[in-house]
Amino acid sequence: MKMKLRHLIGPQDITLEETNRILELARRISANMDSYSEVAKRKKVATLFYEPSTRTRLSFETAMLNLGGSVIGFPSANVSSANKGETVEDTIRVISCYADIAVMRHPKEGAPLLASLYSKIPVINAGDGGHNHPSQTMIDLMTIKSRMGRLDHLKIGMCGDLKFGRTVHSLVQSLSRYEGNEFVFISPEELRMPEYMLDELPIDSDAKWREERSLEKALPELDILYMTRVQQERFFNEEDYLRLRDSYILNAEKMQLAKSNMAVLHPLPRINEISRDVDLDSRAAYFEQVQNGVYVRMALLMSFMGLEDPLTGECILG
Amino acid sequence: MKMKLRHLIGPQDITLEETNRILELARRISANMDSYSEVAKRKKVATLFYEPSTRTRLSFETAMLNLGGSVIGFPSANVSSANKGETVEDTIRVISCYADIAVMRHPKEGAPLLASLYSKIPVINAGDGGHNHPSQTMIDLMTIKSRMGRLDHLKIGMCGDLKFGRTVHSLVQSLSRYEGNEFVFISPEELRMPEYMLDELPIDSDAKWREERSLEKALPELDILYMTRVQQERFFNEEDYLRLRDSYILNAEKMQLAKSNMAVLHPLPRINEISRDVDLDSRAAYFEQVQNGVYVRMALLMSFMGLEDPLTGECILG
Amino acid sequence: MKMKLRHLIGPQDITLEETNRILELARRISANMDSYSEVAKRKKVATLFYEPSTRTRLSFETAMLNLGGSVIGFPSANVSSANKGETVEDTIRVISCYADIAVMRHPKEGAPLLASLYSKIPVINAGDGGHNHPSQTMIDLMTIKSRMGRLDHLKIGMCGDLKFGRTVHSLVQSLSRYEGNEFVFISPEELRMPEYMLDELPIDSDAKWREERSLEKALPELDILYMTRVQQERFFNEEDYLRLRDSYILNAEKMQLAKSNMAVLHPLPRINEISRDVDLDSRAAYFEQVQNGVYVRMALLMSFMGLEDPLTGECILG
Repeated sequence: MKMKLRHLIGPQDITLEETNRILELARRISANMDSYSEVAKRKKVATLFYEPSTRTRLSFETAMLNLGGSVIGFPSANVSSANKGETVEDTIRVISCYADIAVMRHPKEGAPLLASLYSKIPVINAGDGGHNHPSQTMIDLMTIKSRMGRLDHLKIGMCGDLKFGRTVHSLVQSLSRYEGNEFVFISPEELRMPEYMLDELPIDSDAKWREERSLEKALPELDILYMTRVQQERFFNEEDYLRLRDSYILNAEKMQLAKSNMAVLHPLPRINEISRDVDLDSRAAYFEQVQNGVYVRMALLMSFMGLEDPLTGECILG
Repeated sequence: MKMKLRHLIGPQDITLEETNRILELARRISANMDSYSEVAKRKKVATLFYEPSTRTRLSFETAMLNLGGSVIGFPSANVSSANKGETVEDTIRVISCYADIAVMRHPKEGAPLLASLYSKIPVINAGDGGHNHPSQTMIDLMTIKSRMGRLDHLKIGMCGDLKFGRTVHSLVQSLSRYEGNEFVFISPEELRMPEYMLDELPIDSDAKWREERSLEKALPELDILYMTRVQQERFFNEEDYLRLRDSYILNAEKMQLAKSNMAVLHPLPRINEISRDVDLDSRAAYFEQVQNGVYVRMALLMSFMGLEDPLTGECILG
Repeated sequence: MKMKLRHLIGPQDITLEETNRILELARRISANMDSYSEVAKRKKVATLFYEPSTRTRLSFETAMLNLGGSVIGFPSANVSSANKGETVEDTIRVISCYADIAVMRHPKEGAPLLASLYSKIPVINAGDGGHNHPSQTMIDLMTIKSRMGRLDHLKIGMCGDLKFGRTVHSLVQSLSRYEGNEFVFISPEELRMPEYMLDELPIDSDAKWREERSLEKALPELDILYMTRVQQERFFNEEDYLRLRDSYILNAEKMQLAKSNMAVLHPLPRINEISRDVDLDSRAAYFEQVQNGVYVRMALLMSFMGLEDPLTGECILG
């Protein structure tokens, strides 16, 4: 491990080229699982989950086990001694003595960044408040690429809560780095994509965007539909919520309006924003995302630990 | 793993012949632990415990580790993201991407069955409310067989809470499938074996049963005494509870009434229904059950994952 | 594993000679990690944490994984079924069927001792209330030895809460077994080292001690400064706490009074009793303690499981 210590806190921590290389590694892993089953032998990941997230935690743990490594950690703050008042800085210094890489979820924005400043091992942000969750974005990219064959010149609909939806913001940022993508932001007025998000698009991006209030209207032209949850607590009154919620529920009927090769993504968990009658539609890609999540996280763990790809003999990060 | 996907939700999910084959495998494992230490290499069990059960969870995890596999999961709902409102159906679809087999405990009856309908991996029910807990029954059977040399023509006393006792109901069902067994149901009036349980005995069963109010009276004739806990909250008033409780406590004095080769079973945890002075009696088999639990669960994990027995070259389930 | 079953409940459970041998093994491990990576293959540690302690639990789990073994257990009582009322005696009998060694933390003094009386596997006490925490003491000793080259003829300052500080009491006991050590007990009147602790020093000890109220005054003569946390809840009123707390905070300014090779130890977690400007001082040894913790616990697990040292061919405990 002579490589410089690097962390994955936000999407800006890896270049476009590195992103592509990691996605390529994830694809290679998916096709050759057995070749990777011992690359992390004797390595340990620490999963530090200050708030519970079963899916994300188990995905990273599965990834590490698939690489032949092992796992330590805690699944929630109330079973850790975080309540003894130790700072995140001290905790990560301790964990640096135990593990080879750390994966952290924290309710406070910036906690993983702070940890990374004091860490002697790579830190991967697995969600900090409403802020970043870069591995989720990699999964979205991998799924889009495997479905559409490319990450550019796509028309991507983002539907639901675009105001607070962390995964949506990250994905827009990332897809803007690729040529010729167009976004359609489909949301109620109350949950519009914030201006600052659009101002922050990469300078050299040629991404276009427009807004829609109606899912039905946007559907026919989309290559990708990214659904998110509309949470009741975002609304002033129940009446508005009930009225709006239904407009942003995807069901088999609405799917008839969409292209035959459109892909439906969702970061999960879903509540009722995609009805079950869509699950068997071949365009539903949200459980495929879960499977891709394991491959992407195997690729991320390998890349940030500086492990060599046994198939190519190379390390992903310089 | 070309075998058909099968789940173990209730005792009806395996035939009598399969039950016997699994018990036989468990016995083989117990005598040849080293031969089985790598059969589940690179396999993962997911332990999904929506309510805590340390003994059962650790027993399954120990079983998987003894087979050379590894473990992911959560020990209780409050450290999982179950509270985000995800359905059991979606959770198991996600877990299907991570693990090779799932073990689920859930406070709601039917949750593991529902999960199995959407799962791509085998699901083992490790207790759903007061309903089923099939691996416990297998453990009881293994322990009886190893103590008595047979599972038929036995007189089995069931003592304590026969109304709500899940393990008792399952065991009665299972033992009724074997020839010539007789049951003595020993309980206070308030906690009698329910009629519907007896109506549900297998049609071709020749099992006989009768009821007793007195443990002392039943003891001398029993081959097996299966003790369960009498919980205070089952009673209308404390007076009744205190009066009845003591009648159903087993102690060294009462053990003098029993046969010299009777076996005392208890699913654990016990509170005070078996006093400590019985622990050193050679007829006490309840800690032996714990040990057998590991062997039985190794056999179940192997069988439902479709793994070959390295000693016989065969798979248990067709 | 023909060795007699032994437990580590308190420091009195291992002789001075055994302590030294374990420390020597820990040092050997630290210099030859790879040689020890499979000594505990197929062994399992059970980490039974009835109260959470992330640092200690993960340290033991890391130690076991570094030895090639694996881990089962629970991180806190609220995710175990301890609330079903099972006794510690029954729990350890169950765990004896699952694991090869148990590590227990419990809020009640004496619980690990009680467990050890019923256990069939070695039990290591990882903290019982304010009572014992013997592996922490071993870590302190290893760190002192590696910093100073010896464990005798040292002047050791103990600062902060000497009344309730469990680790301080254990360390004083242990260092008193070595020749020519002198203690300076630095604390507010309210948190003085209790008389009974000093009465309990080993009979043949020639250790000297005196008390100080001022950290500044004691600092210049110390070889070792052992800092502990001063907890607000120990004081009658906030005024006293605030006045006294600051006197017992170590910072860069006070460090100027100390010898150039003094070592600062702290059992962690720290709150603010060592300010961050000390962290980069080469005399700060508290994160080194964390690293040594892994080596010491590897040595303890090996020793109590009766595993042979692959470098010397010997077992540590007779």
